[in-house]
Amino acid sequence: MAVPGQVATDSSAKPMRAARFYGKEEIQIKDDIPRPVCGEGQIKVEPAFVGICGTDLHEYLGGPNFSPTSPHPVTNEQCPITIGHEFSGTVKEIGKGVSDKFRVGQKVVVQPTVYCASCGACKVGAENACSSGGFIGLSGAGGGMSEEVVMPEISIMALPPNIDLDVGALVEPLAVAWHAVDASPIADIKEPKCLVMGGGPIGLAVIQVLNARGAKLVICSEVAKKRQEFATEFGAHHVVDPSKEDVVARSLEICGGVNGPDIVFDCAGVPASVKASCNAVKSRGTVVNVAIFEKEIPFNPMWLTFREANYKSVLGYQRKDYLGVLDALGKGTIKPASMITGKIKMQDLVKEGYMPLIHEKDKHVKILVDMKASM
Amino acid sequence: MAVPGQVATDSSAKPMRAARFYGKEEIQIKDDIPRPVCGEGQIKVEPAFVGICGTDLHEYLGGPNFSPTSPHPVTNEQCPITIGHEFSGTVKEIGKGVSDKFRVGQKVVVQPTVYCASCGACKVGAENACSSGGFIGLSGAGGGMSEEVVMPEISIMALPPNIDLDVGALVEPLAVAWHAVDASPIADIKEPKCLVMGGGPIGLAVIQVLNARGAKLVICSEVAKKRQEFATEFGAHHVVDPSKEDVVARSLEICGGVNGPDIVFDCAGVPASVKASCNAVKSRGTVVNVAIFEKEIPFNPMWLTFREANYKSVLGYQRKDYLGVLDALGKGTIKPASMITGKIKMQDLVKEGYMPLIHEKDKHVKILVDMKASM
Repeated sequence: MAVPGQVATDSSAKPMRAARFYGKEEIQIKDDIPRPVCGEGQIKVEPAFVGICGTDLHEYLGGPNFSPTSPHPVTNEQCPITIGHEFSGTVKEIGKGVSDKFRVGQKVVVQPTVYCASCGACKVGAENACSSGGFIGLSGAGGGMSEEVVMPEISIMALPPNIDLDVGALVEPLAVAWHAVDASPIADIKEPKCLVMGGGPIGLAVIQVLNARGAKLVICSEVAKKRQEFATEFGAHHVVDPSKEDVVARSLEICGGVNGPDIVFDCAGVPASVKASCNAVKSRGTVVNVAIFEKEIPFNPMWLTFREANYKSVLGYQRKDYLGVLDALGKGTIKPASMITGKIKMQDLVKEGYMPLIHEKDKHVKILVDMKASM
Repeated sequence: MAVPGQVATDSSAKPMRAARFYGKEEIQIKDDIPRPVCGEGQIKVEPAFVGICGTDLHEYLGGPNFSPTSPHPVTNEQCPITIGHEFSGTVKEIGKGVSDKFRVGQKVVVQPTVYCASCGACKVGAENACSSGGFIGLSGAGGGMSEEVVMPEISIMALPPNIDLDVGALVEPLAVAWHAVDASPIADIKEPKCLVMGGGPIGLAVIQVLNARGAKLVICSEVAKKRQEFATEFGAHHVVDPSKEDVVARSLEICGGVNGPDIVFDCAGVPASVKASCNAVKSRGTVVNVAIFEKEIPFNPMWLTFREANYKSVLGYQRKDYLGVLDALGKGTIKPASMITGKIKMQDLVKEGYMPLIHEKDKHVKILVDMKASM
């Protein structure tokens, strides 16, 4: 079986254009990148829209962190690497042995996960937590901001016919949220009440997925005015400003005064949000951490002890999560189009993409790179 | 229904002897304590053996912490309070309306939990995490180190006929362990592999319960030599000394080299044990915190993220846990008698009980107060 993240290139073919990350504050648009070969079991995709992610910004501002500086164990590549792991596209070529579900020109999304298939995590079906894992667009093996990407059939999924390619680029952040909600006990709770800490792109995605998955009540805790408005737009029933109100007391009150929310999703990932999440959750409830932390934080296990609560932490997504989001998009239970707050050309990536997301982040949810307009 | 922790006293009856905690480093044996009245739905028990717990030592050394210094919301008492929450005894009097399962002279154990029955935790059946909760022997309403204790029928359970009263005093710490193991996913795992951090009284109790509950492999991490021996005696298949070996690497190796233990029980409760627990556990595994923390510790949620692991924290026990331990004792799947490393008189409580447990703690597991010998 073709392994995601292992792809051959053709040095005799005409090279292609791609956005490349070299290291801290260095991105170049190059026209000499070797084209990938569509091998057995693989599909070649022509990227259409590529989202810019918080991880991309972190790499740019202080990286390489996640991007490999020595050959990556799966992709065998190291910086410079092609950018872009949140993307949609159209099928350009179908390799030998691929099932008949695909046709050239079809609208698809690409699950960017790469993994080793042999470590402890992979052995228990948690390939998203693979100890050598990564993502195309961050770990080598190509990326969305290029003319062509090759991945195995298992990493490629059809976009529902009624969904546009730009919305297809939102499937990845929605899959992060789907995975987090799926890891929570939401399916076992009657009329679940949920609190989402943080109204950034992932928080907003969680709010949408919670509504699609039948949450009875969704509270969002967010400081920034514009993000509070987004939270309401995407389905939060209550928005609490933690700079003005006690989010623990307020969410208890909103939930009826006896017990707090059944599930808390921490999409903020700061010491205050961890403490508030643990103190807000209901007795025997669950806190799901969806955030990334760069260092240790102060934590008291007694926050959980006093309510016998659960704290679990999730990472990325799996194919099932992509399929869940695609199904919800097709049925219209998630309508994320207005998450797109900008579309730019690849040539303007830093100036019109990264900079507004860094300096005016409250105004934006997702800025997409329009690949057709960039070639 | 009689509420655990609400008991009347009879000022006209002859007063009784009890060990009383007044505050830091102050314990007195008093002979003027009012006798409790055995009201409707209640049972009066004559304590036989009372274990000294780490919490008792903490109260003595630095308290009152847990002991109330203003009227306790359930018991309405405050320091001085009667000591002793780990105890067995015999039925002395049976109140009106108690079922016919009990008879005077019967060997019993007393579940010391008191709770409000109305808070969020109590409403979800987690009365052990009641926001006003406590224990007789720590929070007022009497305690094991006295001539008589009164609790409702629901708090009193028969000791199996083949089990001696001294072993009955071990049911409480074993119930802490039973509760922790019961909160873990052990029942869902085929041939579970477990790591127990710390070989103190609770760690040793967890080791015994894990064996009774069908763990395939039990590893114990413990620094002290004598405790390492205890761990082996009580059923640990491997003992790792974290001062000499890397407990994360060593437990991975013992578990076969691909994945670490399915479940880790942290009974040590220090920053190093929290970090090692999170880093040792298998992908998608569970860390159960059984320890008590007095302050915040450094913690990185990413320790869990990288393995999508679960961290849950438990508190005390419930009636089901007492019943589980009593059943296991009756069947002989737990044989804890050698946890008893000393028996003393109540008059010698501090000198022969607290002091050895504080200053020679590695030599002891449980010191019991023999109440019959103390009167």
